[in-house]
Amino acid sequence: MSIKEYLAAQTAIVDAALERLVPAESIEPQTIHRAMRYSLFAGGKRVRPILCIAAANCIAPSPAGVEDAASSLEMIHTYSLIHDDLPALDNDDLRRGRPTSHKVFGEAMAILAGDSLLTVAFEVLSNLQGIDDSRKVALIRELATSSGTVGGMIAGQVHDIEGEGQAPTAALLERIHRAKTGALLRGSVRMGAIYAGASVSQYEALSAYGEHIGLAFQIVDDILDVTQSSEALGKTAGKDAAQHKITFPAVYGLEASAVMAEQERLAAHAALAQFGEGAVHLRELADLIVQRSA
Amino acid sequence: MSIKEYLAAQTAIVDAALERLVPAESIEPQTIHRAMRYSLFAGGKRVRPILCIAAANCIAPSPAGVEDAASSLEMIHTYSLIHDDLPALDNDDLRRGRPTSHKVFGEAMAILAGDSLLTVAFEVLSNLQGIDDSRKVALIRELATSSGTVGGMIAGQVHDIEGEGQAPTAALLERIHRAKTGALLRGSVRMGAIYAGASVSQYEALSAYGEHIGLAFQIVDDILDVTQSSEALGKTAGKDAAQHKITFPAVYGLEASAVMAEQERLAAHAALAQFGEGAVHLRELADLIVQRSA
Repeated sequence: MSIKEYLAAQTAIVDAALERLVPAESIEPQTIHRAMRYSLFAGGKRVRPILCIAAANCIAPSPAGVEDAASSLEMIHTYSLIHDDLPALDNDDLRRGRPTSHKVFGEAMAILAGDSLLTVAFEVLSNLQGIDDSRKVALIRELATSSGTVGGMIAGQVHDIEGEGQAPTAALLERIHRAKTGALLRGSVRMGAIYAGASVSQYEALSAYGEHIGLAFQIVDDILDVTQSSEALGKTAGKDAAQHKITFPAVYGLEASAVMAEQERLAAHAALAQFGEGAVHLRELADLIVQRSA
Repeated sequence: MSIKEYLAAQTAIVDAALERLVPAESIEPQTIHRAMRYSLFAGGKRVRPILCIAAANCIAPSPAGVEDAASSLEMIHTYSLIHDDLPALDNDDLRRGRPTSHKVFGEAMAILAGDSLLTVAFEVLSNLQGIDDSRKVALIRELATSSGTVGGMIAGQVHDIEGEGQAPTAALLERIHRAKTGALLRGSVRMGAIYAGASVSQYEALSAYGEHIGLAFQIVDDILDVTQSSEALGKTAGKDAAQHKITFPAVYGLEASAVMAEQERLAAHAALAQFGEGAVHLRELADLIVQRSA
Protein backbone atom coordinates (compact mmCIF):
# COMPACT_ATOMS: atom_id res chain seq x y z
CA MET A 1 0.00 0.00 0.00
CA SER A 2 1.42 3.40 -0.94
CA ILE A 3 1.53 6.12 1.70
CA LYS A 4 -1.20 7.95 -0.24
CA GLU A 5 -3.48 4.93 -0.07
CA TYR A 6 -2.63 4.40 3.58
CA LEU A 7 -3.47 8.01 4.44
CA ALA A 8 -6.73 7.89 2.50
CA ALA A 9 -7.77 4.67 4.25
CA GLN A 10 -6.86 5.96 7.71
CA THR A 11 -8.50 9.33 7.10
CA ALA A 12 -11.73 7.57 6.21
CA ILE A 13 -11.52 5.48 9.40
CA VAL A 14 -10.86 8.54 11.56
CA ASP A 15 -13.60 10.56 9.89
CA ALA A 16 -16.09 7.75 10.46
CA ALA A 17 -15.09 7.59 14.13
CA LEU A 18 -15.46 11.37 14.54
CA GLU A 19 -18.83 11.21 12.81
CA ARG A 20 -19.96 8.56 15.29
CA LEU A 21 -18.42 10.10 18.43
CA VAL A 22 -19.46 13.76 18.13
CA PRO A 23 -23.14 14.53 18.75
CA ALA A 24 -25.15 14.92 15.53
CA GLU A 25 -26.28 18.34 14.37
CA SER A 26 -29.86 17.25 14.98
CA ILE A 27 -29.22 16.93 18.73
CA GLU A 28 -30.06 19.98 20.89
CA PRO A 29 -28.58 22.50 21.23
CA GLN A 30 -28.04 22.26 17.48
CA THR A 31 -25.89 25.40 17.15
CA ILE A 32 -23.08 24.06 19.29
CA HIS A 33 -23.00 20.70 17.53
CA ARG A 34 -23.02 22.47 14.18
CA ALA A 35 -20.11 24.65 15.30
CA MET A 36 -18.13 21.67 16.63
CA ARG A 37 -18.63 19.79 13.37
CA TYR A 38 -17.95 22.80 11.15
CA SER A 39 -14.36 22.95 12.41
CA LEU A 40 -13.90 19.22 12.89
CA PHE A 41 -14.91 18.39 9.31
CA ALA A 42 -13.06 21.22 7.58
CA GLY A 43 -10.63 19.08 5.63
CA GLY A 44 -8.03 18.55 8.35
CA LYS A 45 -5.30 16.08 7.42
CA ARG A 46 -5.85 14.01 10.60
CA VAL A 47 -2.09 13.95 11.23
CA ARG A 48 -2.42 13.31 14.97
CA PRO A 49 -4.99 10.48 14.84
CA ILE A 50 -3.08 8.79 12.02
CA LEU A 51 0.18 9.02 13.99
CA CYS A 52 -1.63 7.41 16.91
CA ILE A 53 -3.00 4.57 14.79
CA ALA A 54 0.32 4.02 12.99
CA ALA A 55 2.17 3.92 16.33
CA ALA A 56 -0.29 1.35 17.68
CA ASN A 57 0.24 -0.68 14.50
CA CYS A 58 3.97 -0.93 15.26
CA ILE A 59 3.07 -3.04 18.25
CA ALA A 60 -0.09 -4.89 17.30
CA PRO A 61 -1.39 -5.35 13.75
CA SER A 62 -4.76 -3.68 14.17
CA PRO A 63 -5.86 -2.99 17.73
CA ALA A 64 -9.66 -2.83 17.64
CA GLY A 65 -11.08 0.58 18.40
CA VAL A 66 -7.79 2.50 18.33
CA GLU A 67 -9.44 5.00 15.96
CA ASP A 68 -11.76 6.12 18.77
CA ALA A 69 -8.80 6.94 21.00
CA ALA A 70 -7.09 8.56 18.02
CA SER A 71 -10.13 10.76 17.34
CA SER A 72 -9.78 12.42 20.73
CA LEU A 73 -6.51 13.94 19.47
CA GLU A 74 -8.27 15.57 16.53
CA MET A 75 -10.87 17.01 18.92
CA ILE A 76 -8.12 18.57 21.05
CA HIS A 77 -6.25 19.84 17.98
CA THR A 78 -9.43 21.36 16.56
CA TYR A 79 -10.39 23.05 19.83
CA SER A 80 -6.94 24.62 19.97
CA LEU A 81 -7.30 25.96 16.42
CA ILE A 82 -10.73 27.46 17.14
CA HIS A 83 -9.48 29.25 20.25
CA ASP A 84 -6.17 30.24 18.60
CA ASP A 85 -8.03 31.89 15.72
CA LEU A 86 -10.13 34.11 18.03
CA PRO A 87 -9.68 37.90 17.77
CA ALA A 88 -8.07 37.99 21.23
CA LEU A 89 -5.44 35.46 20.13
CA ASP A 90 -4.22 35.16 16.54
CA ASN A 91 -7.25 36.96 15.08
CA ASP A 92 -7.39 34.85 11.96
CA ASP A 93 -10.31 34.93 9.54
CA LEU A 94 -9.22 31.99 7.42
CA ARG A 95 -8.49 28.37 8.32
CA ARG A 96 -8.16 25.54 5.83
CA GLY A 97 -9.47 27.92 3.19
CA ARG A 98 -12.73 28.61 5.02
CA PRO A 99 -13.91 31.34 7.39
CA THR A 100 -12.88 30.58 10.97
CA SER A 101 -15.42 29.48 13.58
CA HIS A 102 -15.98 32.90 15.14
CA LYS A 103 -16.55 34.45 11.70
CA VAL A 104 -19.37 31.96 11.08
CA PHE A 105 -20.87 31.38 14.54
CA GLY A 106 -19.77 34.46 16.47
CA GLU A 107 -17.18 34.66 19.21
CA ALA A 108 -19.33 33.33 22.03
CA MET A 109 -20.23 30.16 20.16
CA ALA A 110 -16.64 29.68 18.96
CA ILE A 111 -15.38 29.81 22.55
CA LEU A 112 -18.02 27.29 23.61
CA ALA A 113 -17.36 25.06 20.58
CA GLY A 114 -13.70 24.86 21.62
CA ASP A 115 -14.68 24.07 25.20
CA SER A 116 -17.06 21.40 23.95
CA LEU A 117 -14.49 19.65 21.79
CA LEU A 118 -12.04 19.67 24.69
CA THR A 119 -14.67 18.15 26.95
CA VAL A 120 -15.90 15.51 24.54
CA ALA A 121 -12.32 14.35 23.89
CA PHE A 122 -12.11 13.10 27.47
CA GLU A 123 -15.62 11.70 27.37
CA VAL A 124 -14.67 9.64 24.32
CA LEU A 125 -11.64 8.19 26.11
CA SER A 126 -13.77 7.30 29.14
CA ASN A 127 -16.13 5.40 26.82
CA LEU A 128 -13.51 3.37 24.91
CA GLN A 129 -14.37 -0.26 24.31
CA GLY A 130 -11.90 -3.08 23.92
CA ILE A 131 -9.16 -1.99 26.32
CA ASP A 132 -9.09 -2.27 30.08
CA ASP A 133 -9.66 0.65 32.43
CA SER A 134 -6.00 1.04 33.36
CA ARG A 135 -5.16 1.83 29.74
CA LYS A 136 -8.07 4.26 29.49
CA VAL A 137 -6.76 6.11 32.53
CA ALA A 138 -3.23 6.19 31.06
CA LEU A 139 -4.58 7.57 27.77
CA ILE A 140 -6.54 10.27 29.58
CA ARG A 141 -3.45 11.25 31.59
CA GLU A 142 -1.34 11.42 28.42
CA LEU A 143 -3.91 13.54 26.55
CA ALA A 144 -4.30 15.92 29.48
CA THR A 145 -0.57 16.41 30.07
CA SER A 146 0.37 16.75 26.42
CA SER A 147 -2.29 19.41 25.92
CA GLY A 148 -1.83 21.12 29.30
CA THR A 149 0.18 23.93 30.86
CA VAL A 150 3.29 22.13 32.08
CA GLY A 151 5.30 21.46 28.94
CA GLY A 152 2.12 20.82 26.97
CA MET A 153 0.25 22.56 24.18
CA ILE A 154 -1.16 25.41 26.27
CA ALA A 155 2.31 26.12 27.68
CA GLY A 156 3.48 26.57 24.09
CA GLN A 157 0.61 28.93 23.28
CA VAL A 158 1.40 31.07 26.32
CA HIS A 159 5.13 31.21 25.49
CA ASP A 160 4.17 32.06 21.92
CA ILE A 161 1.94 34.98 22.99
CA GLU A 162 4.48 36.25 25.49
CA GLY A 163 7.32 35.83 23.00
CA GLU A 164 5.81 38.19 20.40
CA GLY A 165 8.14 41.13 19.91
CA GLN A 166 10.88 39.59 22.09
CA ALA A 167 14.35 38.95 20.68
CA PRO A 168 14.22 35.66 18.72
CA THR A 169 16.68 33.48 20.63
CA ALA A 170 17.23 29.76 20.12
CA ALA A 171 16.34 29.04 23.75
CA LEU A 172 12.99 30.81 23.54
CA LEU A 173 12.26 29.19 20.19
CA GLU A 174 12.84 25.72 21.58
CA ARG A 175 10.72 26.42 24.64
CA ILE A 176 7.81 27.58 22.50
CA HIS A 177 7.81 24.85 19.93
CA ARG A 178 8.71 21.84 21.98
CA ALA A 179 5.44 22.57 23.76
CA LYS A 180 3.16 24.24 21.23
CA THR A 181 3.10 21.66 18.46
CA GLY A 182 5.56 19.07 19.68
CA ALA A 183 3.80 17.99 22.84
CA LEU A 184 0.56 16.93 21.19
CA LEU A 185 2.32 15.23 18.27
CA ARG A 186 4.48 13.27 20.70
CA GLY A 187 1.34 12.61 22.74
CA SER A 188 -0.35 11.21 19.63
CA VAL A 189 2.41 8.65 19.14
CA ARG A 190 2.48 7.83 22.86
CA MET A 191 -1.28 7.29 22.96
CA GLY A 192 -0.97 4.76 20.16
CA ALA A 193 1.76 3.03 22.14
CA ILE A 194 -0.34 2.99 25.31
CA TYR A 195 -3.42 1.76 23.49
CA ALA A 196 -1.56 -1.18 21.99
CA GLY A 197 0.13 -2.10 25.29
CA ALA A 198 3.72 -1.10 24.43
CA SER A 199 6.61 -2.36 26.54
CA VAL A 200 8.77 0.30 28.22
CA SER A 201 11.40 0.01 25.50
CA GLN A 202 8.78 0.31 22.75
CA TYR A 203 7.16 3.27 24.50
CA GLU A 204 10.48 5.08 24.81
CA ALA A 205 11.43 4.50 21.19
CA LEU A 206 8.07 5.78 20.01
CA SER A 207 8.33 8.79 22.33
CA ALA A 208 11.71 9.65 20.80
CA TYR A 209 10.21 9.33 17.33
CA GLY A 210 7.38 11.63 18.45
CA GLU A 211 9.84 14.25 19.74
CA HIS A 212 11.70 14.33 16.44
CA ILE A 213 8.68 14.55 14.18
CA GLY A 214 7.14 17.14 16.51
CA LEU A 215 10.13 19.39 16.07
CA ALA A 216 10.33 18.69 12.32
CA PHE A 217 6.65 19.54 11.94
CA GLN A 218 7.05 22.95 13.55
CA ILE A 219 10.21 23.83 11.62
CA VAL A 220 8.45 23.02 8.36
CA ASP A 221 5.34 24.95 9.46
CA ASP A 222 7.50 28.01 10.10
CA ILE A 223 9.26 27.62 6.74
CA LEU A 224 5.96 27.28 4.86
CA ASP A 225 4.59 30.41 6.53
CA VAL A 226 7.42 32.32 4.84
CA THR A 227 7.59 30.54 1.49
CA GLN A 228 3.99 29.67 0.62
CA SER A 229 0.93 31.71 -0.33
CA SER A 230 -2.21 31.92 1.79
CA GLU A 231 -4.01 30.09 -0.99
CA ALA A 232 -1.59 27.15 -0.91
CA LEU A 233 -1.72 26.95 2.91
CA GLY A 234 -5.47 27.46 3.32
CA LYS A 235 -4.63 29.95 6.08
CA THR A 236 -3.11 33.41 6.20
CA ALA A 237 0.56 33.17 5.17
CA GLY A 238 3.27 35.53 6.40
CA LYS A 239 1.52 36.06 9.74
CA ASP A 240 4.52 35.00 11.81
CA ALA A 241 6.68 37.83 10.49
CA ALA A 242 3.80 40.31 10.68
CA GLN A 243 3.23 39.42 14.35
CA HIS A 244 6.97 39.27 15.12
CA LYS A 245 6.67 35.62 16.15
CA ILE A 246 9.77 33.71 17.10
CA THR A 247 10.22 31.14 14.35
CA PHE A 248 12.95 28.84 13.06
CA PRO A 249 13.58 30.94 9.91
CA ALA A 250 13.73 34.09 12.10
CA VAL A 251 16.39 32.53 14.35
CA TYR A 252 18.37 30.33 11.94
CA GLY A 253 17.42 31.51 8.45
CA LEU A 254 15.52 29.46 5.86
CA GLU A 255 18.38 27.29 4.66
CA ALA A 256 19.62 26.19 8.07
CA SER A 257 16.01 25.56 9.13
CA ALA A 258 15.54 23.16 6.21
CA VAL A 259 18.70 21.30 7.21
CA MET A 260 17.42 21.01 10.78
CA ALA A 261 14.10 19.59 9.60
CA GLU A 262 15.96 16.97 7.58
CA GLN A 263 18.09 16.06 10.61
CA GLU A 264 14.97 15.55 12.69
CA ARG A 265 13.49 13.34 9.97
CA LEU A 266 16.56 11.11 10.03
CA ALA A 267 16.58 11.00 13.83
CA ALA A 268 12.90 9.98 13.74
CA HIS A 269 13.76 7.12 11.40
CA ALA A 270 16.63 6.03 13.63
CA ALA A 271 14.34 5.89 16.68
CA LEU A 272 12.19 3.26 14.93
CA ALA A 273 14.98 0.72 14.37
CA GLN A 274 13.58 -1.95 16.71
CA PHE A 275 10.23 -2.14 14.89
CA GLY A 276 11.52 -3.18 11.46
CA GLU A 277 8.78 -3.42 8.83
CA GLY A 278 6.06 -2.72 11.44
CA ALA A 279 7.06 0.94 11.44
CA VAL A 280 6.85 1.49 7.69
CA HIS A 281 3.94 3.90 8.00
CA LEU A 282 5.58 5.92 10.78
CA ARG A 283 8.68 6.29 8.61
CA GLU A 284 6.62 7.45 5.67
CA LEU A 285 4.74 9.88 7.90
CA ALA A 286 8.04 11.41 9.05
CA ASP A 287 9.04 11.84 5.41
CA LEU A 288 5.71 13.42 4.57
CA ILE A 289 5.84 15.85 7.48
CA VAL A 290 9.18 17.19 6.29
CA GLN A 291 8.50 17.08 2.56
CA ARG A 292 4.98 18.57 2.53
CA SER A 293 4.24 21.87 0.87
CA ALA A 294 1.13 22.90 2.87
CA MET B 1 -20.61 19.97 64.31
CA SER B 2 -22.68 22.92 63.09
CA ILE B 3 -23.09 23.40 59.35
CA LYS B 4 -20.86 26.48 59.60
CA GLU B 5 -18.07 24.45 61.17
CA TYR B 6 -18.59 21.67 58.64
CA LEU B 7 -18.35 24.09 55.72
CA ALA B 8 -15.24 25.75 57.13
CA ALA B 9 -13.54 22.39 57.64
CA GLN B 10 -14.45 21.12 54.16
CA THR B 11 -13.48 24.38 52.48
CA ALA B 12 -10.03 24.14 54.08
CA ILE B 13 -9.68 20.55 52.84
CA VAL B 14 -10.75 21.48 49.29
CA ASP B 15 -8.51 24.55 49.23
CA ALA B 16 -5.54 22.46 50.33
CA ALA B 17 -6.27 19.94 47.57
CA LEU B 18 -6.55 22.68 44.93
CA GLU B 19 -3.32 24.22 46.19
CA ARG B 20 -1.59 20.85 45.77
CA LEU B 21 -3.18 19.86 42.45
CA VAL B 22 -2.84 23.05 40.39
CA PRO B 23 0.70 23.93 39.20
CA ALA B 24 2.40 26.55 41.40
CA GLU B 25 2.84 30.10 40.17
CA SER B 26 6.58 29.53 40.12
CA ILE B 27 6.23 26.88 37.39
CA GLU B 28 6.65 28.07 33.78
CA PRO B 29 4.76 29.55 32.06
CA GLN B 30 4.06 31.55 35.21
CA THR B 31 1.37 33.79 33.69
CA ILE B 32 -1.03 30.96 32.98
CA HIS B 33 -0.62 29.42 36.42
CA ARG B 34 -1.11 32.83 38.00
CA ALA B 35 -4.30 33.30 35.96
CA MET B 36 -5.63 29.84 36.85
CA ARG B 37 -5.00 30.46 40.53
CA TYR B 38 -6.34 34.01 40.50
CA SER B 39 -9.81 32.72 39.63
CA LEU B 40 -9.58 29.48 41.55
CA PHE B 41 -8.67 31.19 44.83
CA ALA B 42 -11.08 34.10 44.59
CA GLY B 43 -13.20 33.18 47.59
CA GLY B 44 -15.50 30.67 45.92
CA LYS B 45 -17.80 28.84 48.32
CA ARG B 46 -16.69 25.40 47.04
CA VAL B 47 -20.34 24.31 46.80
CA ARG B 48 -19.68 21.59 44.21
CA PRO B 49 -16.66 19.95 45.88
CA ILE B 50 -18.41 20.01 49.25
CA LEU B 51 -21.53 18.42 47.76
CA CYS B 52 -19.27 15.71 46.31
CA ILE B 53 -17.56 15.05 49.64
CA ALA B 54 -20.83 15.12 51.59
CA ALA B 55 -22.42 12.69 49.13
CA ALA B 56 -19.48 10.31 49.48
CA ASN B 57 -19.83 10.59 53.25
CA CYS B 58 -23.40 9.28 53.05
CA ILE B 59 -21.96 5.98 51.91
CA ALA B 60 -18.57 5.68 53.59
CA PRO B 61 -17.45 7.72 56.62
CA SER B 62 -14.42 9.35 55.04
CA PRO B 63 -13.22 7.92 51.74
CA ALA B 64 -9.52 8.78 51.46
CA GLY B 65 -8.70 11.20 48.70
CA VAL B 66 -12.27 12.15 47.80
CA GLU B 67 -11.23 15.81 48.05
CA ASP B 68 -8.99 15.38 45.00
CA ALA B 69 -11.91 14.13 42.92
CA ALA B 70 -14.06 16.90 44.39
CA SER B 71 -11.52 19.55 43.41
CA SER B 72 -11.94 18.72 39.73
CA LEU B 73 -15.49 20.07 40.01
CA GLU B 74 -14.24 23.43 41.25
CA MET B 75 -11.81 23.54 38.31
CA ILE B 76 -14.65 22.99 35.85
CA HIS B 77 -16.90 25.48 37.62
CA THR B 78 -14.14 28.10 37.62
CA TYR B 79 -13.29 27.59 33.94
CA SER B 80 -16.96 28.10 33.09
CA LEU B 81 -17.06 31.37 35.07
CA ILE B 82 -13.90 32.70 33.37
CA HIS B 83 -15.26 31.98 29.90
CA ASP B 84 -18.79 33.15 30.82
CA ASP B 85 -17.43 36.51 31.97
CA LEU B 86 -15.62 37.19 28.66
CA PRO B 87 -16.74 40.20 26.59
CA ALA B 88 -18.14 37.88 23.90
CA LEU B 89 -20.35 36.13 26.46
CA ASP B 90 -21.71 37.87 29.57
CA ASN B 91 -19.13 40.68 29.44
CA ASP B 92 -18.79 40.99 33.19
CA ASP B 93 -16.08 43.04 34.88
CA LEU B 94 -16.77 41.84 38.40
CA ARG B 95 -16.79 38.37 39.95
CA ARG B 96 -16.77 37.63 43.66
CA GLY B 97 -16.06 41.30 44.22
CA ARG B 98 -12.86 41.31 42.14
CA PRO B 99 -12.04 42.20 38.53
CA THR B 100 -12.72 39.25 36.23
CA SER B 101 -9.87 37.25 34.68
CA HIS B 102 -9.82 39.06 31.33
CA LYS B 103 -9.74 42.44 33.07
CA VAL B 104 -6.57 41.40 34.90
CA PHE B 105 -4.79 39.11 32.42
CA GLY B 106 -6.30 40.11 29.09
CA GLU B 107 -8.72 38.14 26.97
CA ALA B 108 -6.19 35.79 25.41
CA MET B 109 -4.87 34.63 28.76
CA ALA B 110 -8.38 34.36 30.22
CA ILE B 111 -9.43 32.06 27.38
CA LEU B 112 -6.32 29.92 27.90
CA ALA B 113 -6.76 29.92 31.69
CA GLY B 114 -10.25 28.49 31.23
CA ASP B 115 -8.94 25.88 28.80
CA SER B 116 -6.19 25.00 31.27
CA LEU B 117 -8.54 24.50 34.21
CA LEU B 118 -10.78 22.32 32.05
CA THR B 119 -7.78 20.23 31.02
CA VAL B 120 -6.25 19.88 34.47
CA ALA B 121 -9.60 18.74 35.90
CA PHE B 122 -9.37 15.56 33.86
CA GLU B 123 -5.66 15.16 34.56
CA VAL B 124 -6.42 15.24 38.29
CA LEU B 125 -9.03 12.50 37.94
CA SER B 126 -6.60 10.35 35.95
CA ASN B 127 -4.08 10.71 38.80
CA LEU B 128 -6.40 9.82 41.70
CA GLN B 129 -4.95 7.55 44.34
CA GLY B 130 -6.90 5.15 46.51
CA ILE B 131 -9.63 4.06 44.11
CA ASP B 132 -9.43 1.54 41.31
CA ASP B 133 -9.25 2.48 37.64
CA SER B 134 -12.86 1.56 36.89
CA ARG B 135 -14.05 4.23 39.33
CA LYS B 136 -11.63 6.77 37.87
CA VAL B 137 -13.07 6.12 34.42
CA ALA B 138 -16.63 6.44 35.75
CA LEU B 139 -15.75 9.76 37.43
CA ILE B 140 -14.20 11.10 34.23
CA ARG B 141 -17.29 10.07 32.25
CA GLU B 142 -19.59 11.77 34.78
CA LEU B 143 -17.55 15.00 34.81
CA ALA B 144 -17.41 15.13 31.02
CA THR B 145 -21.12 14.48 30.49
CA SER B 146 -22.33 16.80 33.22
CA SER B 147 -20.22 19.63 31.83
CA GLY B 148 -20.78 18.82 28.15
CA THR B 149 -23.15 19.69 25.32
CA VAL B 150 -25.81 17.00 25.64
CA GLY B 151 -27.88 18.03 28.66
CA GLY B 152 -24.74 19.30 30.41
CA MET B 153 -23.39 22.68 31.45
CA ILE B 154 -22.40 23.86 27.97
CA ALA B 155 -25.84 22.94 26.64
CA GLY B 156 -27.26 25.26 29.28
CA GLN B 157 -24.93 28.09 28.31
CA VAL B 158 -25.91 27.75 24.66
CA HIS B 159 -29.63 27.70 25.46
CA ASP B 160 -29.06 30.69 27.70
CA ILE B 161 -27.33 32.72 24.95
CA GLU B 162 -29.90 31.72 22.35
CA GLY B 163 -32.76 32.40 24.76
CA GLU B 164 -31.86 36.08 25.28
CA GLY B 165 -34.70 38.22 24.04
CA GLN B 166 -36.98 35.23 23.41
CA ALA B 167 -40.36 34.96 25.12
CA PRO B 168 -39.77 33.62 28.65
CA THR B 169 -41.69 30.34 28.63
CA ALA B 170 -41.61 27.69 31.32
CA ALA B 171 -40.38 25.06 28.84
CA LEU B 172 -37.41 27.16 27.73
CA LEU B 173 -36.60 28.07 31.31
CA GLU B 174 -36.48 24.45 32.36
CA ARG B 175 -34.33 23.51 29.39
CA ILE B 176 -31.80 26.23 30.20
CA HIS B 177 -31.49 25.67 33.89
CA ARG B 178 -31.70 21.94 34.16
CA ALA B 179 -28.50 21.99 32.10
CA LYS B 180 -26.72 25.24 32.94
CA THR B 181 -26.37 24.95 36.70
CA GLY B 182 -28.26 21.76 37.47
CA ALA B 183 -26.14 19.31 35.52
CA LEU B 184 -22.87 20.08 37.27
CA LEU B 185 -24.47 20.23 40.72
CA ARG B 186 -26.09 16.84 40.11
CA GLY B 187 -22.76 15.66 38.71
CA SER B 188 -21.05 16.77 41.93
CA VAL B 189 -23.32 14.60 44.03
CA ARG B 190 -23.03 11.70 41.60
CA MET B 191 -19.24 11.88 41.62
CA GLY B 192 -19.27 11.58 45.40
CA ALA B 193 -21.51 8.54 45.05
CA ILE B 194 -19.26 6.96 42.42
CA TYR B 195 -16.11 7.66 44.43
CA ALA B 196 -17.51 5.96 47.51
CA GLY B 197 -18.82 2.95 45.58
CA ALA B 198 -22.56 3.60 45.86
CA SER B 199 -25.05 0.83 45.15
CA VAL B 200 -27.55 1.48 42.35
CA SER B 201 -30.24 2.46 44.83
CA GLN B 202 -27.88 4.82 46.66
CA TYR B 203 -26.72 6.33 43.36
CA GLU B 204 -30.29 6.95 42.23
CA ALA B 205 -31.33 8.53 45.50
CA LEU B 206 -28.32 10.85 45.45
CA SER B 207 -28.98 11.72 41.79
CA ALA B 208 -32.54 12.70 42.70
CA TYR B 209 -31.21 14.84 45.54
CA GLY B 210 -28.79 16.44 43.08
CA GLU B 211 -31.59 17.24 40.63
CA HIS B 212 -33.64 18.97 43.29
CA ILE B 213 -30.85 21.05 44.77
CA GLY B 214 -29.67 21.92 41.25
CA LEU B 215 -33.04 23.39 40.41
CA ALA B 216 -33.32 25.08 43.81
CA PHE B 217 -29.88 26.64 43.37
CA GLN B 218 -30.79 28.21 40.05
CA ILE B 219 -34.17 29.50 41.22
CA VAL B 220 -32.50 31.18 44.20
CA ASP B 221 -29.72 32.57 41.97
CA ASP B 222 -32.35 34.15 39.73
CA ILE B 223 -34.21 35.58 42.74
CA LEU B 224 -31.02 37.05 44.22
CA ASP B 225 -30.14 38.71 40.92
CA VAL B 226 -33.38 40.70 41.29
CA THR B 227 -33.42 41.33 45.03
CA GLN B 228 -29.77 41.84 46.02
CA SER B 229 -27.19 44.53 45.36
CA SER B 230 -24.01 43.96 43.34
CA GLU B 231 -22.10 44.55 46.56
CA ALA B 232 -23.93 41.79 48.43
CA LEU B 233 -23.54 39.35 45.52
CA GLY B 234 -19.93 40.15 44.65
CA LYS B 235 -21.01 40.26 41.00
CA THR B 236 -23.12 42.60 38.90
CA ALA B 237 -26.75 42.37 40.08
CA GLY B 238 -29.75 42.98 37.83
CA LYS B 239 -27.93 41.66 34.75
CA ASP B 240 -30.56 39.05 33.95
CA ALA B 241 -33.26 41.66 33.40
CA ALA B 242 -30.87 43.98 31.57
CA GLN B 243 -29.93 41.17 29.16
CA HIS B 244 -33.54 39.90 28.89
CA LYS B 245 -32.52 36.51 30.28
CA ILE B 246 -35.17 33.91 30.87
CA THR B 247 -35.33 33.50 34.63
CA PHE B 248 -37.68 32.01 37.22
CA PRO B 249 -38.85 35.43 38.47
CA ALA B 250 -39.44 36.51 34.84
CA VAL B 251 -41.63 33.47 34.17
CA TYR B 252 -43.33 32.87 37.53
CA GLY B 253 -42.83 36.07 39.54
CA LEU B 254 -40.75 36.41 42.70
CA GLU B 255 -43.24 34.96 45.15
CA ALA B 256 -44.04 31.81 43.20
CA SER B 257 -40.33 31.32 42.51
CA ALA B 258 -39.61 31.33 46.25
CA VAL B 259 -42.32 28.72 46.79
CA MET B 260 -40.80 26.55 44.06
CA ALA B 261 -37.35 26.76 45.65
CA GLU B 262 -38.83 25.64 48.96
CA GLN B 263 -40.59 22.71 47.27
CA GLU B 264 -37.29 21.61 45.72
CA ARG B 265 -35.62 21.82 49.12
CA LEU B 266 -38.22 19.52 50.63
CA ALA B 267 -37.98 17.11 47.70
CA ALA B 268 -34.20 17.03 48.15
CA HIS B 269 -34.68 16.08 51.80
CA ALA B 270 -37.15 13.37 50.88
CA ALA B 271 -34.70 11.83 48.41
CA LEU B 272 -32.23 11.23 51.25
CA ALA B 273 -34.57 9.12 53.42
CA GLN B 274 -32.56 5.89 53.12
CA PHE B 275 -29.34 7.44 54.45
CA GLY B 276 -30.64 8.51 57.89
CA GLU B 277 -28.07 10.40 59.94
CA GLY B 278 -25.37 9.84 57.30
CA ALA B 279 -27.00 12.49 55.13
CA VAL B 280 -27.14 15.24 57.74
CA HIS B 281 -24.69 17.42 55.83
CA LEU B 282 -26.46 17.00 52.50
CA ARG B 283 -29.72 18.06 54.20
CA GLU B 284 -28.09 21.11 55.69
CA LEU B 285 -26.53 21.96 52.33
CA ALA B 286 -29.97 21.86 50.69
CA ASP B 287 -31.26 24.23 53.38
CA LEU B 288 -28.32 26.55 52.89
CA ILE B 289 -28.70 26.64 49.10
CA VAL B 290 -32.29 27.81 49.44
CA GLN B 291 -31.84 30.11 52.41
CA ARG B 292 -28.64 31.90 51.31
CA SER B 293 -28.60 35.61 50.59
CA ALA B 294 -25.60 35.73 48.19
